[in-house]
Order: sequence, then structure tokens, then C-alpha cells
Amino acid sequence: MRRGLMNCFFRPHGIAVIGASPQMRSIGRAITENLRNGKYPGSVYPVNPNHKRVLGLRCYASVKKIPYRVDAAVVAVPAKFVPGVVGECGEKGVKAVTIISAGFGEIGEKKLTGELRRVMGEYAGKMRVIGPNCLGILDTVSGVDVLFLPRSRLGRPGRGVVSFISQSGALGSAILDWDAMKGYGINKFISYGNAMDVDEADLVEYLGDDRSTKVVMAYLEGVRDGRKFFRIAKKVAGRKPVIAIKGGVTEGGARAAHSHTGSLAGAAEVYNAVFTQANIVRAVTMESAFDFARVFATEPRPKGKRVQVITDGGGYGVLATDAILQNGLELAKIKAKTKALIEKNSPEYAVVANPIDLTGDADKDRFEMAIRAVLADSNVDLVLLILLFQVPTLEKGVVESVYRTLKERKKPVVVMSAGGVYSERQRRRLEKRGISTFVSPFDAVRSLKALVDYYVGK
Amino acid sequence: MRRGLMNCFFRPHGIAVIGASPQMRSIGRAITENLRNGKYPGSVYPVNPNHKRVLGLRCYASVKKIPYRVDAAVVAVPAKFVPGVVGECGEKGVKAVTIISAGFGEIGEKKLTGELRRVMGEYAGKMRVIGPNCLGILDTVSGVDVLFLPRSRLGRPGRGVVSFISQSGALGSAILDWDAMKGYGINKFISYGNAMDVDEADLVEYLGDDRSTKVVMAYLEGVRDGRKFFRIAKKVAGRKPVIAIKGGVTEGGARAAHSHTGSLAGAAEVYNAVFTQANIVRAVTMESAFDFARVFATEPRPKGKRVQVITDGGGYGVLATDAILQNGLELAKIKAKTKALIEKNSPEYAVVANPIDLTGDADKDRFEMAIRAVLADSNVDLVLLILLFQVPTLEKGVVESVYRTLKERKKPVVVMSAGGVYSERQRRRLEKRGISTFVSPFDAVRSLKALVDYYVGK
Repeated sequence: MRRGLMNCFFRPHGIAVIGASPQMRSIGRAITENLRNGKYPGSVYPVNPNHKRVLGLRCYASVKKIPYRVDAAVVAVPAKFVPGVVGECGEKGVKAVTIISAGFGEIGEKKLTGELRRVMGEYAGKMRVIGPNCLGILDTVSGVDVLFLPRSRLGRPGRGVVSFISQSGALGSAILDWDAMKGYGINKFISYGNAMDVDEADLVEYLGDDRSTKVVMAYLEGVRDGRKFFRIAKKVAGRKPVIAIKGGVTEGGARAAHSHTGSLAGAAEVYNAVFTQANIVRAVTMESAFDFARVFATEPRPKGKRVQVITDGGGYGVLATDAILQNGLELAKIKAKTKALIEKNSPEYAVVANPIDLTGDADKDRFEMAIRAVLADSNVDLVLLILLFQVPTLEKGVVESVYRTLKERKKPVVVMSAGGVYSERQRRRLEKRGISTFVSPFDAVRSLKALVDYYVGK
Repeated sequence: MRRGLMNCFFRPHGIAVIGASPQMRSIGRAITENLRNGKYPGSVYPVNPNHKRVLGLRCYASVKKIPYRVDAAVVAVPAKFVPGVVGECGEKGVKAVTIISAGFGEIGEKKLTGELRRVMGEYAGKMRVIGPNCLGILDTVSGVDVLFLPRSRLGRPGRGVVSFISQSGALGSAILDWDAMKGYGINKFISYGNAMDVDEADLVEYLGDDRSTKVVMAYLEGVRDGRKFFRIAKKVAGRKPVIAIKGGVTEGGARAAHSHTGSLAGAAEVYNAVFTQANIVRAVTMESAFDFARVFATEPRPKGKRVQVITDGGGYGVLATDAILQNGLELAKIKAKTKALIEKNSPEYAVVANPIDLTGDADKDRFEMAIRAVLADSNVDLVLLILLFQVPTLEKGVVESVYRTLKERKKPVVVMSAGGVYSERQRRRLEKRGISTFVSPFDAVRSLKALVDYYVGK
């Protein structure tokens, strides 16, 4: 039953927009527009006593006046009206209410918060609430988009396998926007704000059961119920990677988090210990969290932590080696027969060790030969491929060749490629073919480390 | 005199391209093309006994046959011909020779290396040599461009104030290409390869004296003469920031560096100590080195390490606070009157502490008011401004408003702004106006830390 209610946030039969408005730049207009013009196939019901129609849709004076089934409502009215409106949702039988409106616990408003809590209590077990003070939900599978920011300001990513929850709306939206620009894709995005009812644990549990979500990512400032979160996160992390970014790990950061979402951020050590025990992948920056999510989405499970580097540029080979050792991974030692095979097929000046430096005149055939040899060597658990496209011997065919060689890979392989416009284009072509690429050797290695930590153990 | 010789690499009267060729995709063709079609205003003399003309230019059988003054030569012939050709350069009176050709110390080729050393010795004090096994030189001021990679593969950055030297050619070229795409600009780029004559210390010294270079950046694997480098780097760092990225800081990385450029990378601890003593700014990644270079180029000297954060999104405020404290910087405590002023001009729900959270409905006037108040507060040494452009209240005018407010700044201010296409456009507009921007709060704070380390001390 509880899960059934949660489902109504993401796959509702009918959505009411309470506070819908035709007024330019209003939140009520942005939400109505996003739902009407997006991919949500169900019915959208604007609710606002001051209007008969909003953006061509019939507008109702109250959610109770809608003569159809309404599973979900999104609430964007001034805070003082929220408790009443939520009560009406309860009477109507709405099962999933997302409250965008701010002006509750986050600004220390106790009276309104108490009223809202009382109303929500009346419908406990029959209605779930996300928010208040949140950005809303985006589900690229079902088409639900109740984010209150217009598409012109906040790009919507395409469909992906990573779902992302964020306590912070502004941070969540910036990341979503960035994700859209990068072309990475997302499955579900939920900004859950003050978490008066649905909290991080509920969402992680829901996404753990959601078959279209392969990787769960969370930005957390505080956790409402530590025990519950730990129990659920551990269970989910046993099935699929859970990546967490924790804000407020310093005393000052925790203070800032408290005045931001009213959450008690708590000691960094406690979180570190809990994350490790639950096998939650910890990311320090948002960028690294997305890096990790990409490799979890594309790469097979590694058997160990021995990394082989293949490069056409010595300098990056050196930096990659430093990064591997500094991250606690190991340099693979290829077998004698692998070494002999690669040496036989490379010019004399190539260095066949770790890194394997195929040197600046390497072409796609030399790369393909070396990659195949290394993939077949059981002394190698993961591969870092450094492709510098500046050299004229690396022609366009190299992307297809690398893709062909890696298509059926049984080991994680990531590609590092730095450069400008030409390189960037080749790198994006690899990304489109499901190969995770990086512009920095440190970022590439950090992602391999995340794979090893999750699958092999620290 | 020595400096006069060094000048001939960058502002030569006449350049000979030894090994020039009309053959498509040849190195000799790429160099001739880049020189002829670039901004170098002097004469270019192709040299190759097999051709009469190369790309429409008269081609000479030997550098000695050129009947004009030739200050510089770039050598791109097979290794075995290099000693002879360099000897001819000496006879002709060429003062600056850049040897692109590989096949010497880096592959353990002792005989040829010895021959080359002997020839170079004959002209000691009359000729300087960069290379062999290098990518060459790009000088955006004089127009000298002897890089052997075509512009279609390797973008050329515009003119800037940062000069960059790299032992590794592939790494250097990838970075140059990336820099061109980012639109950051460069002053001089030198890939110096095996450093048989001109080494990192000579180049740092030259760039230290070069008035158009404001920031010196170096990628180092090993250092040929530690004492000399330390003495010179310390002297230069007293005048302008010297940023160093050190490859081969782990045992494995040092081994890789040895087989790459034959350099002895040496213990990380030694380098760390030397860098600190010489006040060299240490960067771990190339990306952070360029971040540092940008803020050194745009920001005034900070007086202390107290950072004030101003944000319109609480989550990023939390992460920025964490980053400030984790980097050993301090959170500024604004004066009571500053706090009162900002509170008077902000809505009640704004949080005026550190971070100052102007909240998601902040417009440009609220930002401008808060920035001015903080800039005027002597309790604040540096400012981190977080601008999230997703919110509709931040209209286009904000870029102009921020620029106007920061134009005469006496304190370092950096901007952090994450997001997608729209944000990226605004961010780039700020960059063009000389304001350093970052997409991650961690990167922004790391750069403030570099400023503090260099100007205030660790």
C-alpha cells in the first residue's frame, strides 16, 4: 500500500496543479506549462479560484471540484493556504502531494508547520507528501515534470538510468541543468525539501525497487532518521550502487546546513563510518558523483584492483600512474606472453610495461592490438585507456575500432582524452557508444576506485 | 648574451624549417604551414635537398645556402641526420635551434645523443638548443608557431598572460588544445623534451623576465639540475606566481617518468619541501593549474584568508563552507553594521551570516547590495560569489551588474555558477569581463587557497 502511494508521485492517474496561473513568470504557470508541453500522457487539472482557464486548460476553483480521478497534486500557493489545500487533497482522495511552497520549518515558522503536520496526520496511510520547500519531481520515464522552473532556464536531461535525489532544490536544479547540457541523461529527479513526510530513506527505498533505475544518487545535508536511512540504504546498496554526496561535513558547513534546511548535519566521522558499513559510495563533489554514476552504469564488475594503463602520450601515463597509486589501487603486471605479443606488434621505441606507452605515432590498429591483449590477460582487472587525438596518426576510425574492441568487455575500461574541439568531438562519440570518458587522469582513476570500492571492497 | 640567444627562440629574425616538405601529413609540412599561415611576420625558409619549393616558398638544400640572416631553426629530420644539421646551423650562425626529432636519450640511444652533444658543445655560448624529442614553441605575442601538429588537430589559444612549459609534448599539446577550446588564452608555450641544453630552469628564468608573461606554469617530470632550478624558481616566484604540476610523485609514477623522458623524478617529499620553500604554487591536476593561473591573472592580492560566501542557493553555500574549512581557509565574520545593512535590504527569510544566503528569489540589485557591503567590510579578505542562474529572478542584467560592482575590486572575488546552457552562457560572459568563474565550489575555493598560499603564506 505504501509503495502504491509512492508510485502515485511518479505514475499518477491525473495531476492537479494547485496554484496554476496564466501570469507570466509565475511558478503556477511554469508548472502547468511543463506538464502540458512535456511527455506526461495523463490529464492535467489547473486549480485556482481566480481563473476559468489556464493555458487553454479548464481551471477548477478547488481540487474537490475536479470530477475525475486525481492521484497526484502539486501545490504552489502561498504558505498560509497550504494546510487548507492539502486538507482538500485528502478529502478528494489525492494520494501523492508535492508541496513546492516555502515558508515552513526552513524559516522557523512553527505555527504553519504544526497546522500542516496536523492535516497530513489526518490522512496518514492514505496520502504521502513530498516537501514543502522543494523543487519537485522529474521522471523521464513517465513524463511527470512538476519542477517549477521553465525549460528555458533549467534544461531537462534525456532518459537515463541514474536517479538523483536532492534535499537542496537550488543545487539539485543546477545539477539537473548541467546534466542536461552534458547529455548524460537521468531517470528520476526528486527535490524533497523539508522532508516532513517522504524523506531520503523513503526515496532511496523506492528507487531501490524501481527497475528502470540502475544507480541511485543522493545529495544529503542531514538525515531525518539515521537508523531507518542506514537500514534501507544498506539493503538497497546490496542490489545497486548508491552514491551519496554529503554537505555539511565541517562544523561551519553543518551550521550552514542547519540554517538552510533546518537539518542537523552531524559529525563527518559518523557519516563516514555509516557510509562505509552500508557500502554507500561516497563522492565529495557533484561532478565526481556523476562520474561514478556513469561508470557504474556502463562498466562490468571488476574482479580486483589491478589497473593497466595504455597510452599514446607518456606524460599522461605518468600522471595516471601517480593517480592509481595515490588512490590505493595497484598497477597490473601483465604476463610475459602478453608483453611479448604487444612488443612483437609495436615499434621498438614503444614501452611495454605499466603504462604501456604506444607512443605518439600509434594508430588504431596498434591500440586495438594492445587493448585486446590486455583484456585477455587475467593479471589485469581494470583498464585505463589514454587516447590523445592531437596526433595525426589517430584517424576517425579509432572511435569505431575502440568501440568494437570494447563492446563485449568483461572488465571495466575507461577512456581518458584531453584536448580541444576535435578531441571533444571524438570523446563525445565514445560516450554515445556507452564508453565512459574523462578529460583528466585523476577523475578517470577516481571512478575506477569507486568501482573497486563498491564491488571488491576497500 | 645568453638572454639574447634565448630571445631568438621567441622573436627571431628569420626561421629555417629543416626537413620542410610538401608531403601531406608530414611534420615538415605542418610546421611550414603553421609558420607561413600564422602571425609570424618574419621570413620562413624551408630547407630540404629534395625540393625546390615547399608550399610556394623557395626551398634550400641546406641552411648554409640561405643568403639571409637566420636567427632560428626548427629541425624535423630523422634522428641520424640531426647532429649534422645542427652543425650546419652552427656554421650558419643560427642562434636558437628547436629539435623536434625524437630518437635520442628517451629511447636510450647513446651514440647519436653523444654526437649531438659534441656538435652542440662546439657552438656553446653561440647557440642554444631546445629538445630534442619536443613539440616546439608557440608564442602568441610574436607569432612564432613551430608546433608540429596541424591547427585542425591542435587548436591554438588566443593571446593571454599565462606562459606554460611542459617536458611532455603530448600532455602539453592536449592542454594547449583544451586551453584554446576554453578560450583562456596563452602567452608562450614551450615543450622542451629531453632538455639537452635549454632546461626547465632556463625557461622559467626567461619567462620570469618576460614582461608579457604574468603567470608561469610548468609541467615537470624530473628536474635536470635541482639546485639551479630551485635558485631560479625562487627568484622568479618572488616577482610573479610560478605554478608547478609535478608528474611522477609516486614510485610507480617516477618509474613511468624515467622510461618516458629519462628523467629521475625523485621523492615527492623533496619536491614538496622545495616547492614550499621557493613559494612555488603546487597544482595536482592540469585543470587546477589553469584555474590557479586564471585567478592569479585576474585577482588582486588578498590581505588574509577570511572568505565570505554570498549565494542564492543554500546547498552550494553548505558545500562552499565545507570546502573553505577543509582547505584551511577561514570563514569571515562580517561586522554588525554590514549585517544590519544587508538585513535591512533583504527579505526576512534571507540568512545573513556566512554564507549569506540571499535565497532563490534574489535579483541583481540584492546581489549588488550584498557584494558592495561585503567588499567594504575589512573583516573580509576574499569573496566567493555563488550565482545560480536557473531562477527566473536573475535576469540578464546580472552579469553587467556584477561586473560593474567588481570592476574596481580591491579583494579577490571569484564566481561559482553551476548549470546548463543558459548558465554556461552567463558564466562565459563573466569570464570575458575578467571575472574568474567555476562550476564547482571545491574548484573555486581551491583557487582562493592558491592565492592565499602565494600572497599571504601557508
